[in-house]
Amino acid sequence: MKTPVPDYLLEIRDACSDAGEGRLADYIPELAAVDPDRFAVAACTMDGVVYTAGDADAEFTIQSMSKPFVYALALRDRGIEAVLEKVEVEPSGDAFNQISLNRDTGRPRNPMINIGAITTHTLVGPPGASEDERSEVIADGLSAFAGRRLEIDGAVCESELRTAFRNRAMANLVRAGGIIEDDPDEAVRGYTRQCAYRVTVRDLAVMAVTLATGGVNPVTRERVVSAPVARQVLAVMATCGMYDAAGDWMSTVGIPAKSGVSGGILGALPGQVGLGVFSPRLDEHGHSVEGVRTFERLSQDLELHLMNTTVTEVEAVRSVRFDEISGRRTFRLQGPMTFASAEQVLRRLAEIPEGPGEVTLDLSRVSSVNTSARRMLLEAMRRLSAEGHTVGLADPGRRLPEPDLGDGTRPVTRRAAR
Amino acid sequence: MKTPVPDYLLEIRDACSDAGEGRLADYIPELAAVDPDRFAVAACTMDGVVYTAGDADAEFTIQSMSKPFVYALALRDRGIEAVLEKVEVEPSGDAFNQISLNRDTGRPRNPMINIGAITTHTLVGPPGASEDERSEVIADGLSAFAGRRLEIDGAVCESELRTAFRNRAMANLVRAGGIIEDDPDEAVRGYTRQCAYRVTVRDLAVMAVTLATGGVNPVTRERVVSAPVARQVLAVMATCGMYDAAGDWMSTVGIPAKSGVSGGILGALPGQVGLGVFSPRLDEHGHSVEGVRTFERLSQDLELHLMNTTVTEVEAVRSVRFDEISGRRTFRLQGPMTFASAEQVLRRLAEIPEGPGEVTLDLSRVSSVNTSARRMLLEAMRRLSAEGHTVGLADPGRRLPEPDLGDGTRPVTRRAAR
Amino acid sequence: MKTPVPDYLLEIRDACSDAGEGRLADYIPELAAVDPDRFAVAACTMDGVVYTAGDADAEFTIQSMSKPFVYALALRDRGIEAVLEKVEVEPSGDAFNQISLNRDTGRPRNPMINIGAITTHTLVGPPGASEDERSEVIADGLSAFAGRRLEIDGAVCESELRTAFRNRAMANLVRAGGIIEDDPDEAVRGYTRQCAYRVTVRDLAVMAVTLATGGVNPVTRERVVSAPVARQVLAVMATCGMYDAAGDWMSTVGIPAKSGVSGGILGALPGQVGLGVFSPRLDEHGHSVEGVRTFERLSQDLELHLMNTTVTEVEAVRSVRFDEISGRRTFRLQGPMTFASAEQVLRRLAEIPEGPGEVTLDLSRVSSVNTSARRMLLEAMRRLSAEGHTVGLADPGRRLPEPDLGDGTRPVTRRAAR
Amino acid sequence: MKTPVPDYLLEIRDACSDAGEGRLADYIPELAAVDPDRFAVAACTMDGVVYTAGDADAEFTIQSMSKPFVYALALRDRGIEAVLEKVEVEPSGDAFNQISLNRDTGRPRNPMINIGAITTHTLVGPPGASEDERSEVIADGLSAFAGRRLEIDGAVCESELRTAFRNRAMANLVRAGGIIEDDPDEAVRGYTRQCAYRVTVRDLAVMAVTLATGGVNPVTRERVVSAPVARQVLAVMATCGMYDAAGDWMSTVGIPAKSGVSGGILGALPGQVGLGVFSPRLDEHGHSVEGVRTFERLSQDLELHLMNTTVTEVEAVRSVRFDEISGRRTFRLQGPMTFASAEQVLRRLAEIPEGPGEVTLDLSRVSSVNTSARRMLLEAMRRLSAEGHTVGLADPGRRLPEPDLGDGTRPVTRRAAR
Repeated sequence: MKTPVPDYLLEIRDACSDAGEGRLADYIPELAAVDPDRFAVAACTMDGVVYTAGDADAEFTIQSMSKPFVYALALRDRGIEAVLEKVEVEPSGDAFNQISLNRDTGRPRNPMINIGAITTHTLVGPPGASEDERSEVIADGLSAFAGRRLEIDGAVCESELRTAFRNRAMANLVRAGGIIEDDPDEAVRGYTRQCAYRVTVRDLAVMAVTLATGGVNPVTRERVVSAPVARQVLAVMATCGMYDAAGDWMSTVGIPAKSGVSGGILGALPGQVGLGVFSPRLDEHGHSVEGVRTFERLSQDLELHLMNTTVTEVEAVRSVRFDEISGRRTFRLQGPMTFASAEQVLRRLAEIPEGPGEVTLDLSRVSSVNTSARRMLLEAMRRLSAEGHTVGLADPGRRLPEPDLGDGTRPVTRRAAR
Repeated sequence: MKTPVPDYLLEIRDACSDAGEGRLADYIPELAAVDPDRFAVAACTMDGVVYTAGDADAEFTIQSMSKPFVYALALRDRGIEAVLEKVEVEPSGDAFNQISLNRDTGRPRNPMINIGAITTHTLVGPPGASEDERSEVIADGLSAFAGRRLEIDGAVCESELRTAFRNRAMANLVRAGGIIEDDPDEAVRGYTRQCAYRVTVRDLAVMAVTLATGGVNPVTRERVVSAPVARQVLAVMATCGMYDAAGDWMSTVGIPAKSGVSGGILGALPGQVGLGVFSPRLDEHGHSVEGVRTFERLSQDLELHLMNTTVTEVEAVRSVRFDEISGRRTFRLQGPMTFASAEQVLRRLAEIPEGPGEVTLDLSRVSSVNTSARRMLLEAMRRLSAEGHTVGLADPGRRLPEPDLGDGTRPVTRRAAR
Repeated sequence: MKTPVPDYLLEIRDACSDAGEGRLADYIPELAAVDPDRFAVAACTMDGVVYTAGDADAEFTIQSMSKPFVYALALRDRGIEAVLEKVEVEPSGDAFNQISLNRDTGRPRNPMINIGAITTHTLVGPPGASEDERSEVIADGLSAFAGRRLEIDGAVCESELRTAFRNRAMANLVRAGGIIEDDPDEAVRGYTRQCAYRVTVRDLAVMAVTLATGGVNPVTRERVVSAPVARQVLAVMATCGMYDAAGDWMSTVGIPAKSGVSGGILGALPGQVGLGVFSPRLDEHGHSVEGVRTFERLSQDLELHLMNTTVTEVEAVRSVRFDEISGRRTFRLQGPMTFASAEQVLRRLAEIPEGPGEVTLDLSRVSSVNTSARRMLLEAMRRLSAEGHTVGLADPGRRLPEPDLGDGTRPVTRRAAR
Repeated sequence: MKTPVPDYLLEIRDACSDAGEGRLADYIPELAAVDPDRFAVAACTMDGVVYTAGDADAEFTIQSMSKPFVYALALRDRGIEAVLEKVEVEPSGDAFNQISLNRDTGRPRNPMINIGAITTHTLVGPPGASEDERSEVIADGLSAFAGRRLEIDGAVCESELRTAFRNRAMANLVRAGGIIEDDPDEAVRGYTRQCAYRVTVRDLAVMAVTLATGGVNPVTRERVVSAPVARQVLAVMATCGMYDAAGDWMSTVGIPAKSGVSGGILGALPGQVGLGVFSPRLDEHGHSVEGVRTFERLSQDLELHLMNTTVTEVEAVRSVRFDEISGRRTFRLQGPMTFASAEQVLRRLAEIPEGPGEVTLDLSRVSSVNTSARRMLLEAMRRLSAEGHTVGLADPGRRLPEPDLGDGTRPVTRRAAR
């Protein structure tokens, strides 16, 4: 059987294609010379499988889509606190090229607008890194996110530099305000270079999913940034990624995302998927017309939305079996164990009469146990044990590490699924 | 066994308590007269169980926490489109009482700031509803969210009205701009009444979870608003609920939330939990000091965060069994079936050599199947059937409705778990 | 001979008339019903002669042109300092109906925009004045400026009140901010009434010249406000009177002015003239199209501009006569004696060789002596006396009061013009 | 006799001196190293006499006080219209270093704030002027205003350039917006040099009076700019010169002025005087503390204020003599003839019964006749002549050029003062 996933993407691509709407970016000749009808889409799963439709190998410059990843590198290299002291994380309500500084602190409002991204750029690498060293760190970092060596488009980079007056204004402003310590011209050169890396929609999807997994590139298995860094970047993309349309995007699409003036948009739904779209005609906000439409469709059709309320309707306790002869109760749990599902389990355990008796938790159908669920299950087992029950555990997948019952003993290990 | 969940809440409450920090709201005597040391917290699960710690029965006025629910009622009564024509959904970057109107459209920036909430208030009930009719609809609606009849605190209401100059200014402004058609004084009276309902943390948790479930109050089982309405409200809470600290809240807490000047904060994590906290001392933004701290702690300790990337690390295909004799392949699926998990399943199905053969999908451990997953699984089953396979389905829980194979036939029904 | 001045005004009126441009105000029916082709102009001299051209007796409502005069009454009744504590005097760069409050102080930016004018209105009369008392003070005050009893246009007043939502918003805002202490509805009623007085261009010219003279109505000879109050009002008209076009008006017209939505504009050039124009079609800023054009023409043709540099090219010392026989020097002074002209005189006196000798100042051609000139002339006379000269004074017009020579003596009085 | 004027200045200087208040500018070491107690004041009369008090020869850099003069040079070189297309003339309500661009046009709000001054700088000299050529034009122009060759302080210039990040931001912004066409770095270099000229208070007073006279340096007698240019500069100084305190300055001081961060303030009262003050300690707005106080005192004590209403209280008609025998009427006029005074004359002439008769205007005591007064007097003489009067003119000073009576004849020339 051929998997139907690429066909779905193709179908969505076709449904969202509407040649003619929007305009190419034209502030540099290189962007204006692109074939306006190109259109590609890609999705990368949490375990690194990439599906594509359209001109999936067409390269374009990453532009502003570099911002979340360079922000991730800065967070990694300087720490979240240190970066927050330079760049805030509030939506500005302004377009990408506005001078959005906090009136009181002088700090850029967030790292997704240009003035914040230029500032963020200077925070990559160790303090005091030279221009070349920083370029190297960024080249390595972006490539690690993409899972392949990315290259700069020299012509675009030079064109951008020639007309980078507004960005130079920004860099000088944050330098004047003591926010950056670098030479402003150097900062603009580096930032312009960062925006000129050539990528494909495949790269976008892989880069995005590397945030969605919590920092591990699922294709190369390389950990690029830590989970807290990935979470921070996703949170900022959610509120600031689409500039002055953050609220609208959150309600209609609900996927943390970032767009670039070259026509790309990438999106990362935490724990679920990474997405990339490319179509160079832009709307008045500078977002790809077909790209926005594609994201709306992906969100609706695939129910990919942060506010989806139906995702985890799981009965955490699949069954309770009571063996009248042995007096043993077996609780079969299933699905991922989070606070919500563990709470369901605890509620059922709370119904058990006081001991002595036998209680076994069967975790063989449990897919994962997060920290809070682990604490809750262990506490329940300890309480049952303290009340005189013999507690058993069937955990062939070892989802529950170190099941200490509090008195130094461990639960009786049982085979699952009897 | 006594469930340890309340003890967790108590522990968190104690850890976040820090008598002395912050100040009571004092613009009306009723708020200034509250015992500043009160502190309660509540959580309500997706199936309606409420856990509390602290002064859980202490009543306080709902204040701005009424905004998301009255917004929900307006969306229900007028439709999402019609409400968006009056009130936008962009974070304003301003404090709650600022005059944040879109320069071009004259519309309030979002329904969580006062000027937007006053406008939203006038959209509840049918067009042309009288002041009394609207009050009735709101009384019924808020009570339905809470699952009990809520009452107005008359003294607070009257005190607020006496000093409601700023809100009257807002109402007159949107009336001057043609955004509302009601008499501004009437709008302010109604809005002030809406803010004066007495609630407890238990109410807050139930009201919040009614959004988190997609609109159904899990205690009363009543559907209060539709799923799209609930999603819209959650999205707006996520970007605008905490006023000018939206980005910071998204990164440190990551729970759609709303606070009130009485000291309450409520939070709703879609598909997971509803939360309510009450502690009347406020920080300089007007948020409860201990309330904010409690939410930060709940988010961290219980891993309740929209950007959590680890939640759904589920192996969707629990096992594949190949019976060499019959040539039958049985795919045991588990957990919730979403786009992401269905994709995993399809990938494994794509490895099956061309038919003829027998392929059975065992859904007995599947907790739910969403629309996109349903489409994907059915398409896979059709393709397998078209390739000559005999397709079987073990779905005792009927997670997959109407499993049509495309040619009018249905898969062979099998009992699960052989 | 018939004076040609009215013919000049008529000529200017005709040159500036261009039927068709601009639009009537139409937010209330009364303003929209005016004959759009009406056009009148008036000028009032410092001694109370009024020249008019066009429909000089056509009445229209005073609207925003009441602002400088009610500001003058507030300054008179409460003192300049007390009023400055409530309303600032900075140009706002905003349109008349914008909410221009100083971010730090919460005070309206100036008394010429609506929010400042509403605030100013509440400062007329003694503290604690009732609504009726204040109305009476304003009726008396505006009438004193105009030199005749002005009446309210009841229909306009009621129409304005029905749609005064924006002004009610303003009044509630300044009440909320503690800037005004009155009931906001009362303030709006009073302010609306203040704007509804019926006036003619003749009234405008007389009211304006009453500021230009330093507070005395030259027609009735009544002192309406003090000179410092008049100066303060003129200064504020100069920087804030034309709203967001203050700088442009200052460079092209250079006459402190105020316009009203009814189509009137009044201007007051300190020490020179009062002007009034009426033509009801408005430009996009809400100023009378033909009114603006007329003021530009008046400024150019009549060289009425604050920045005129040629006005006072006076030879202060008309002649010096040296009588060789008596050794007497007679200095004939002329024109107004200010710092600049007195300085010229002193410079010539400084050339006199040390005494003994005779020095006479002949002030018979001097038109006025201001305080600084008086001090300077007296000091010079004292020094001459101290150097041994016999000092004489010919001052038939008594321009130089109390000419004490510092040693208790007085200069020798001489008849002028020998 | 020694003239007491310098003693007055000294007295004012001493009264305004208050060692200790305010702080030196310290953003470059050169400014921080100045003796904080220096304090000098100078006044220059319309005919070029300079009075000084204090450290009158102390040099300091001109800084922002160069802005009005370079604006004047740009107006001269490109024309008022062309400059207005690049830089507006509205008060911005912002501090000197704010990015005040008109939202709609992208143009700097006025030429007195840095972003407008940098733009203005690029408009000096012919279009396409090289950096060196422009520097030369500015050196010549500033020197012509001062009446001596000014020199640049190289150390200050270099220090400023090293930290000119904010100005470089401004220059890049206006370049990005297409307002300037020059290289931004070049513009900043040139602007920084313009601000580094060394001046004394004497220079400031002479430069200021050169505007007050309408463009002629009264010391060197050189016309530096035209009268319309001078008037435009004075108007802009009046509304924008003191940045965000324009309205306050207009009401308390009323002298068009400009201050510099080095501690200087210059003021120009049209037709009256030029003033310069220097004292390096600054208030929070960046204005010299003692400088501001001195200007307030000069305005009050010397009655130097644009809104002074008492200046021209002149009886334009000094006397009317009627010779019963000859039937001749002689009108003796006096003082400057402006619209206001000519109107007085015309009013008296209008009282003459119809001719025949003899009417003589004696202008021998008239100090000046401006264009509008000339037109009015001539028209009156023509009307009298047309009514049958024999019109005579005694104008020994030739104040009234080409007195054509309309029918080709001229009035009878008479000797004055019979």
